[in-house]
Amino acid sequence: MPVETIRWKGELEGCAELIDQTRLPEELVYVRCETPEDMWEAIKMLRVRGAPAIGIAAAMGLVLGVKDSDATDFDAFVQELREVKDYLATSRPTAVNLFWALDRMERTARENSGLGVPELKERLLEEALRILEEDRETCRRIGRNGAELLKDGNTVLTHCNAGGLATADYGTALAVLFAAAERGMQVGAYADETRPLLQGARLTTWELKQAGIPVTLICDNMAAQVMKEGRIDAVVVGADRIAGNGDVANKVGTYGVSVLAAHHGIPFYVAAPVSTFDLSLACGEEIPIEERDPEEVTRWGGRTTAPDGVDVYTPAFDVTPAANVTAIITEKGVIEHPNAQKVRAHVRGEQ
Amino acid sequence: MPVETIRWKGELEGCAELIDQTRLPEELVYVRCETPEDMWEAIKMLRVRGAPAIGIAAAMGLVLGVKDSDATDFDAFVQELREVKDYLATSRPTAVNLFWALDRMERTARENSGLGVPELKERLLEEALRILEEDRETCRRIGRNGAELLKDGNTVLTHCNAGGLATADYGTALAVLFAAAERGMQVGAYADETRPLLQGARLTTWELKQAGIPVTLICDNMAAQVMKEGRIDAVVVGADRIAGNGDVANKVGTYGVSVLAAHHGIPFYVAAPVSTFDLSLACGEEIPIEERDPEEVTRWGGRTTAPDGVDVYTPAFDVTPAANVTAIITEKGVIEHPNAQKVRAHVRGEQ
Repeated sequence: MPVETIRWKGELEGCAELIDQTRLPEELVYVRCETPEDMWEAIKMLRVRGAPAIGIAAAMGLVLGVKDSDATDFDAFVQELREVKDYLATSRPTAVNLFWALDRMERTARENSGLGVPELKERLLEEALRILEEDRETCRRIGRNGAELLKDGNTVLTHCNAGGLATADYGTALAVLFAAAERGMQVGAYADETRPLLQGARLTTWELKQAGIPVTLICDNMAAQVMKEGRIDAVVVGADRIAGNGDVANKVGTYGVSVLAAHHGIPFYVAAPVSTFDLSLACGEEIPIEERDPEEVTRWGGRTTAPDGVDVYTPAFDVTPAANVTAIITEKGVIEHPNAQKVRAHVRGEQ
Repeated sequence: MPVETIRWKGELEGCAELIDQTRLPEELVYVRCETPEDMWEAIKMLRVRGAPAIGIAAAMGLVLGVKDSDATDFDAFVQELREVKDYLATSRPTAVNLFWALDRMERTARENSGLGVPELKERLLEEALRILEEDRETCRRIGRNGAELLKDGNTVLTHCNAGGLATADYGTALAVLFAAAERGMQVGAYADETRPLLQGARLTTWELKQAGIPVTLICDNMAAQVMKEGRIDAVVVGADRIAGNGDVANKVGTYGVSVLAAHHGIPFYVAAPVSTFDLSLACGEEIPIEERDPEEVTRWGGRTTAPDGVDVYTPAFDVTPAANVTAIITEKGVIEHPNAQKVRAHVRGEQ
């Protein structure tokens, strides 16, 4: 198991602990989150990031927000729960798993409205831990399904970090590599460094090195050249939200990589759990795109890298049209050349 | 005049002074180069960079290397000159203007073999200053020719820095914007930050702000999204070497931008002096591509951004095939849809 990204410490009176990913690769440190405010900050500041991990974090954040509730009846309790839920939902707008996990937690409460408040709290902690456990299993299935698409000796380009650190422990895009390596296949990777926050340089290379998978770091703007030189057999990325027609929101830069992959005749795969689909959105244009703080672009390591007051445009995500996606890999299987009909059938299990 | 990138201070006994571009935008500092070793270091460490500016720097470096020569006859003098020339030629391999300027200096010496050594030294300083003066005029012509291709209200994407700082004072790609603005056109720019050394963030935004041209900084991986959103009317970049068929070597990332521009139906222009053409090379594959130190990618502002010992691939340049180039803009005019025949005719003045 490459990493334990997030965990619950102790019983209901315990707290969440998560790897502070902003401090990698320099040091591997767990931070404690004892309140929903702690968790909100950890999500906002990207101490925990990656759509599936954010879902787990939000579920635990909700537990932190209600475990000390003084409510004595269900209505008062669920009112408090909704307030914490609305608060946590403001931490990041794009990853649908955040909302999916929060909705699932509220639904769990409502389905157990007959329980007393103490039992309800226990039930919610169990549900958060179930989300985490399910993610472990989901990611392993994604890995197995994705490994089928690779051949021995393949080299994969990935963007950002859709590894163990983006999930409970095994990843989505990187799960494909982990699973291929576990089967004894020789696979390697190029990692886009992924500006501005360098998740590729800091996190993806770190994980792959730990797993013994050969990895070469490049700047984002070198991806085209690396493809042109014939070094890449497939692109595999994660996703933060997938619209009903198969359009994929993922870390900014993914869309450009998809255009470059198509130009060079390289398959472009998206690996994500079914919980990443948002069938309420017909297409990617409806996905809200978070804009980040310009200082993430203009400052690094205490040094200013651009003139004071320069205008900066810094969307955190972009949308890759389904037409650029060779296949979406989920725990249920593979959707080749995704479209609205195939996505609906896949998500609803009609496949 | 936006900047004075490089200048000669005093008479023959003087020295070269150049803006230390590694310290921009935090401080505008001139460093003195009193020996060819100083100049070699300044070119290698990118204190002075940009193909035309490197040519001027190399010519001045040659003067620094021979001005104190004790040689009393031409043959001994030209032998010393060749040694300095060969040394300076090792500073950076890709920008052809470096070799062009050094060859021109040697030719000047040979054409004046009848002069005494003291007069020859004076003649070489004059030639270096002539290269600088010609660059000023060349860049203004490039700007005027390029401005014809823009419309009022256009926004241009540029990559790296092909501005005044890459030349004597006016730039190549940015000259197009400067000239358009001088005509009263409303033009704006997006600047790719240009990893790893952030010439776009540090230098291009600084120059454009000084010139009062609106500029928005983006990370390299956001260029595709910015194009998709319809924010870009044209791409204009510089060049470090252009092969006989119109293939263009420029800062790594340029090739990817050219693919993205073609995909979005956006014209892709290359602005460069005629001295950038290397007709000895049939196509771009023959252009030597410099690989830089991995630490330029893995360290920033004293902070490590990747695990120790990670493999890094860091070509400094890439090659954009002529097929992706809408037009090359030079001081002589515009080569639309360049090919070998058009390039030869243009360079030889048959156009």
